Amino acid sequence: MIENKPINSNPNVSVDCVVFGFDGSDLKVLLVERYRRDNLDFQDDTLVLPGDLINNNEDLNEAASRVLYDLTGLKKIFLQQIGAFGSPKRLTKPKDIVWLEAVRMNPEARVITIGYYALINIKNYKVRPSSFAKHVVWRGYDEVGELGFDHNEIIVKAIHNLRDQLYREPIGFELLPNHFSLHQLYSLYNEIMGGGIDRRNFRRRMLKTGFLKETEEYQEGVPHKPARLYTFIPEEFENASKNNFKFY
Amino acid sequence: MIENKPINSNPNVSVDCVVFGFDGSDLKVLLVERYRRDNLDFQDDTLVLPGDLINNNEDLNEAASRVLYDLTGLKKIFLQQIGAFGSPKRLTKPKDIVWLEAVRMNPEARVITIGYYALINIKNYKVRPSSFAKHVVWRGYDEVGELGFDHNEIIVKAIHNLRDQLYREPIGFELLPNHFSLHQLYSLYNEIMGGGIDRRNFRRRMLKTGFLKETEEYQEGVPHKPARLYTFIPEEFENASKNNFKFY
Repeated sequence: MIENKPINSNPNVSVDCVVFGFDGSDLKVLLVERYRRDNLDFQDDTLVLPGDLINNNEDLNEAASRVLYDLTGLKKIFLQQIGAFGSPKRLTKPKDIVWLEAVRMNPEARVITIGYYALINIKNYKVRPSSFAKHVVWRGYDEVGELGFDHNEIIVKAIHNLRDQLYREPIGFELLPNHFSLHQLYSLYNEIMGGGIDRRNFRRRMLKTGFLKETEEYQEGVPHKPARLYTFIPEEFENASKNNFKFY
Repeated sequence: MIENKPINSNPNVSVDCVVFGFDGSDLKVLLVERYRRDNLDFQDDTLVLPGDLINNNEDLNEAASRVLYDLTGLKKIFLQQIGAFGSPKRLTKPKDIVWLEAVRMNPEARVITIGYYALINIKNYKVRPSSFAKHVVWRGYDEVGELGFDHNEIIVKAIHNLRDQLYREPIGFELLPNHFSLHQLYSLYNEIMGGGIDRRNFRRRMLKTGFLKETEEYQEGVPHKPARLYTFIPEEFENASKNNFKFY
């Protein structure tokens, strides 16, 4: 939540983005440190989700894309709305009030925020802290600590939506490289679902779905026997999904 | 969208509710005719979803509950948020502008609306048009015509969410009487999913799930052989759902 162009911005509605990333073994969330343009020495160790007030003539999805572009330089990220968060008390923690009074034109205005979640493969993308926030950090999604505002609540809702969608849409593959091992795929699903997926069943079912295709490539630079890499066939996911195929 | 207590209301955020009802054979949506307190002769044949600006100290869910209570007199309705709708052009159709200019204190204010959907069994509930809107009508969900504002878009999103949820939560039973025939249950699922469910498979699978329990009752007053009535066991739904049981 940084004031970008205060004059053009709508003081009542913001967007906040939960950016999930996967580094090959852990599911992470991108967080930013609050800062003030007018006072770069401002100390506030509170982490928040990247977000901003919407601009006056901007659609909600456009606002979320703008925030992510500012942060990552990327334009085509998987991005989805998860709903509105509008408790009258969402901006009333003492540290939040101090920050709002320093940066907002109407610090007491009630702000409803619209949550989004995005998925990126951490290794493909270079996050740009400079333009948007002082520091940017990746944190394990279950190790984010107490965030500013109601941002913990937004992350919980985002995880819930991600889990639901993992059954029905091929979004998990957004988080993987084009060619991946079955173990990477297993780790991703198991992380997102919060553990408890049987590894052998998962492998067997996944191979049966028809939406994974063997490549001729193998892992490189690993201390064990290199595993074969697979690639994902979107059209076949659609078929499996239509048939309510249970793949984990 | 009716101004209830303009002084207390937040001019920038509203809620709009898609109330689904089932009458035993068809899935319907509750719509209201716009009216003006100051001019009961006001003619506007545009139908809209029931909705209202939120009040200043009111949570979003509370606002949606208030709208539904005003409309139905009921307090415990299944109610769920489906997301925010915030196109900068959502209030710019000519008829919408005329209406907004007549009833709103800030007719040009940009309003973001938060959509909700609710499920009720039409026969159980008596809708009260008097307190909220001039006329209230039930329309088949695919026969609503062109509604005011962006309300068609909200209905589409609501149906989408309802279909997704029908797989994972026992919400369909909110729309049925406590004791129902398998044919009623089939009609409900088939209506919500937009047709195409095989009736015999559906019966067979539903009976296998374990979450339907036979009662000793039979249909009454039907011209054909009365069918046995069943009741729903919520705990067993949870088990079937955990096991990813395919029941339609």
